[in-house]
Amino acid sequence: MKKGKRTYVFDNRPKIIGRYAVGGPKEGEGSIPEYFDEILEDDLLGQKTFEIAESTMLRKAINGAIQNAKLDVKDVDLLFSGDLLNQTFASNFAARELDVPYAGLYGACSSFGEGLALASMLVDSGTIGKAAVAASSHFSAAERQYRFPLELGNQRTPTSQWTVTAAGCSVVSSDGNGPEIVSATIGKVVDYDVSDVNNMGAAMAPAAGETLLAHLEDTGVEPDYYDMIFTGDLGRHGMEMFRYFMESSGVKIGDNYCDCGAMIFRPEQRTFQGGSGAGCCASVFNCYILELLKRGRYGRVLFMPTGALLSKDSPLQGEPIPAICHAISVEYNKKTEI
Amino acid sequence: MKKGKRTYVFDNRPKIIGRYAVGGPKEGEGSIPEYFDEILEDDLLGQKTFEIAESTMLRKAINGAIQNAKLDVKDVDLLFSGDLLNQTFASNFAARELDVPYAGLYGACSSFGEGLALASMLVDSGTIGKAAVAASSHFSAAERQYRFPLELGNQRTPTSQWTVTAAGCSVVSSDGNGPEIVSATIGKVVDYDVSDVNNMGAAMAPAAGETLLAHLEDTGVEPDYYDMIFTGDLGRHGMEMFRYFMESSGVKIGDNYCDCGAMIFRPEQRTFQGGSGAGCCASVFNCYILELLKRGRYGRVLFMPTGALLSKDSPLQGEPIPAICHAISVEYNKKTEI
Repeated sequence: MKKGKRTYVFDNRPKIIGRYAVGGPKEGEGSIPEYFDEILEDDLLGQKTFEIAESTMLRKAINGAIQNAKLDVKDVDLLFSGDLLNQTFASNFAARELDVPYAGLYGACSSFGEGLALASMLVDSGTIGKAAVAASSHFSAAERQYRFPLELGNQRTPTSQWTVTAAGCSVVSSDGNGPEIVSATIGKVVDYDVSDVNNMGAAMAPAAGETLLAHLEDTGVEPDYYDMIFTGDLGRHGMEMFRYFMESSGVKIGDNYCDCGAMIFRPEQRTFQGGSGAGCCASVFNCYILELLKRGRYGRVLFMPTGALLSKDSPLQGEPIPAICHAISVEYNKKTEI
Repeated sequence: MKKGKRTYVFDNRPKIIGRYAVGGPKEGEGSIPEYFDEILEDDLLGQKTFEIAESTMLRKAINGAIQNAKLDVKDVDLLFSGDLLNQTFASNFAARELDVPYAGLYGACSSFGEGLALASMLVDSGTIGKAAVAASSHFSAAERQYRFPLELGNQRTPTSQWTVTAAGCSVVSSDGNGPEIVSATIGKVVDYDVSDVNNMGAAMAPAAGETLLAHLEDTGVEPDYYDMIFTGDLGRHGMEMFRYFMESSGVKIGDNYCDCGAMIFRPEQRTFQGGSGAGCCASVFNCYILELLKRGRYGRVLFMPTGALLSKDSPLQGEPIPAICHAISVEYNKKTEI
């Protein structure tokens, strides 16, 4: 049921019945390795290229989530997947190995949220029974595509984030047990004229703010309605920008706020503002957030993946960085209505 | 209602209430310029780069379709859009200028079909009321991204196709009048080990064949049930490959078959196998196919956009070309059930 301008509140609350998160070696030394289902010893996974390695890692996440749901790939009606590589290399090649109807997405680091929203809308209405939603990123593939070859050993700026090597997948189902998807607020593309490609947090923070304002208006709740609000990968500086944006809009964000990018690495790992990449919030959601929902640490979470919709060419053409954010509300063992 | 393995037959038949197609100068000298809503005199549209020009053209198509539907952009619940550029540059920057919830897609030249299928599934169930679905491609942007800078004046091979400069958009609605979307069959990624990047038709033909076989099996109809079957952009050689694939599978394809890529240019334009690009079938559908449905020339059409899911890097890494095809059945003034 559509509520307000762009929020869908689900009458039948799709359930997340399967989940899997894979992380790379650096993520295995980060803040939350014990939550990951699998930590890779070798970020090449025995493949010849980083791109094929990313695709292999993504397929591990998809197969892992389907197994975790006690399903076979043939039981999945539709796979949504996205990544950061040109022409979504990782997703297309992962889908090639899976016998499943496929819809490729591009929403940069918001791709997992976009997929989760679309899957929930289709499952809630009964159009499809089971969807798999996945996303990935790979540090070495992203670095050479967006910035410089690793061999150059280039310096990084203090506002930069570190693209995580990780993949996550959720299986969303009309029946079964698991955390329930309560609502989804679809994002719009916003552009606040931020043009520093080494400061993605600043570019994406207004998108997160704008989507949260829409979500609050559409649903009539306050931020403290949620036990925790997780933005996608704004990083530490982006978190401050987001808080500032919200306070400037008259909404106070309390201690119930965290960011997937800011929390995935430990400070001494020198990632500066934290992690980023489509695999960042996809993996944190599937390992950490869903686990804490299951353990009862949280009852209600608002999950807000953010994406910087620049092309690697657009900044060279003088364009600022457009951004988007989708918000998905998830509950477990907390029976309330919004 | 899901029918068979991956076909959705729509109880409420979403209507296409608005449409718009923009073509470039070469398309204006092609086979069907009189069907286009707008032919550009300048394929740069006064912009500084081909990528921004493509995005501007795409926005023209989206705004044109919304106006054609007698709607305001605020009436659109969700915009689906995709293109061939790295990180879907054209779509993201078009959406930036539009105040509309946005879901970016990447399905290469099948993107428009993927969007049309997802939009129809969401509209049929009543989850959303109105969706805009768009896709674009631009010869000069694609050429320098996938192949060589135009200035090189490189030779083309006989099996190559010419990326069309065009964009198309449909507005899909739960109410109103217009051609009705009857069903959608979602594609899987197939790979028949074709590795010649100058022969996309051969790479995509098996995907079209595999999806048509699934569609026929799921719905129980024969190919001659349709007044016309349009594949996306297999080109002339790809059409032959598709016929061969189908006949090898025991299904004869008659004269009721055409390909958007094969028909958009005249032979003397020396495009070899014809047109390609995400804007090819998106524009042909929105100008030619929908118009002939409206005129009563066709009653039932099966529209099958095909996409080659290679990355520009994947062939360099020794990978063959995976492909996908979605099939959407459209009717107008022909009241039958499948």
